[in-house]
Amino acid sequence: MPEGGRTTRVPLVERVLEANDEIAADNRVELERRGIFSVDLIGAPGSGKTALLESTLRALQGRRRPAVLVGDLATRRDGDRLARWCDQVVQISTGQGCHLEAGQVRDALGQIDLDGVDLLFIENVGNLICPVGFDLGQAAKVGLFSLTEGADKAAKHPYLVQAADLLLLNKIDLWPHLSFDRSIFEADVRLLNPRVPLLDVSATTGQGLDAWIAWLER
Amino acid sequence: MPEGGRTTRVPLVERVLEANDEIAADNRVELERRGIFSVDLIGAPGSGKTALLESTLRALQGRRRPAVLVGDLATRRDGDRLARWCDQVVQISTGQGCHLEAGQVRDALGQIDLDGVDLLFIENVGNLICPVGFDLGQAAKVGLFSLTEGADKAAKHPYLVQAADLLLLNKIDLWPHLSFDRSIFEADVRLLNPRVPLLDVSATTGQGLDAWIAWLER
Repeated sequence: MPEGGRTTRVPLVERVLEANDEIAADNRVELERRGIFSVDLIGAPGSGKTALLESTLRALQGRRRPAVLVGDLATRRDGDRLARWCDQVVQISTGQGCHLEAGQVRDALGQIDLDGVDLLFIENVGNLICPVGFDLGQAAKVGLFSLTEGADKAAKHPYLVQAADLLLLNKIDLWPHLSFDRSIFEADVRLLNPRVPLLDVSATTGQGLDAWIAWLER
Repeated sequence: MPEGGRTTRVPLVERVLEANDEIAADNRVELERRGIFSVDLIGAPGSGKTALLESTLRALQGRRRPAVLVGDLATRRDGDRLARWCDQVVQISTGQGCHLEAGQVRDALGQIDLDGVDLLFIENVGNLICPVGFDLGQAAKVGLFSLTEGADKAAKHPYLVQAADLLLLNKIDLWPHLSFDRSIFEADVRLLNPRVPLLDVSATTGQGLDAWIAWLER
């Protein structure tokens, strides 16, 4: 969000956020009425959001009926990857937009046969900052960090950590090749959000995915 | 940047950008007048911006007189890391701001003794999207990607690739442990920005840093 010109900017940003929140509330009512559990997945570019969803969709085959909305500035690459594992995938192109908004989610939901869905993944644009402020109507916000980003990322992105209902720490298969101090990462998480579950996973090897799947199905 | 409410939003965003650009132009005049070469370093969270600057400052010791401005939502950790290698470091806390703006750079420059400086690094907030649209008055924009983010990141972040005067591909020391197809990454870069130099580096091992230092000193 632009930071300059604060005195003229804030009222407009508040109007944008209020309009977003109204649509998000509608999305939430509709998803809950249909018994669809929905997750807004937020992580940095390259943190492994799409890889995690690929593994997750594979694990859920025959057990759940998922749909996926996936946001990117450009390209259909993530949507194409996910469509191999799920027949209800909508790619949302945001252009220069740095996050998804509730209206985009509402419009994308209109392209899905929701009667056949009980689980909705919303893969947000790769960005640890802007997506946090925009409610989409999801049931849960999941923050995805990865080992390769370094142990300081929870402290540097406090708003995501505070807002998250679950945190995932991905790419633990690369641990032998990195100097990542998990105790620093977890201590920062605990300062910001004492009770949020924190699960270690590897989307590549499948390590730790059982706990994530169990959380989804809880 | 908020995407909703487009009809009311655009004029305000344009006013914010115009105000930013005016200050950026002043910054540019001042930096050029003083013969300071300035770099705006843009990369994802965890791409290795601070690690690259640590290695760079170490390599430049006794050869150049650098200063560093470093932006983060929260914490002074990057500034503290860089202060070990450079006595002119200013940490800019952006709060919820997803990018640096020219006014923040102007104010931070006011905290530095510019008479003793010939090279200015501006480490932007970890974000591949929002920083691209805000001129800071820098001489060059440098985009930093890392191997661990995956080979699709140039295509997914076309505005950074198009705007960049130099692209760095970091963490090449991890190549043996990843499936990163450099030909895909480079092909996407070339489609977007045919002539931008693209240098492979490892901030950790120092591999490839000579070419980066040579580019800085050119």
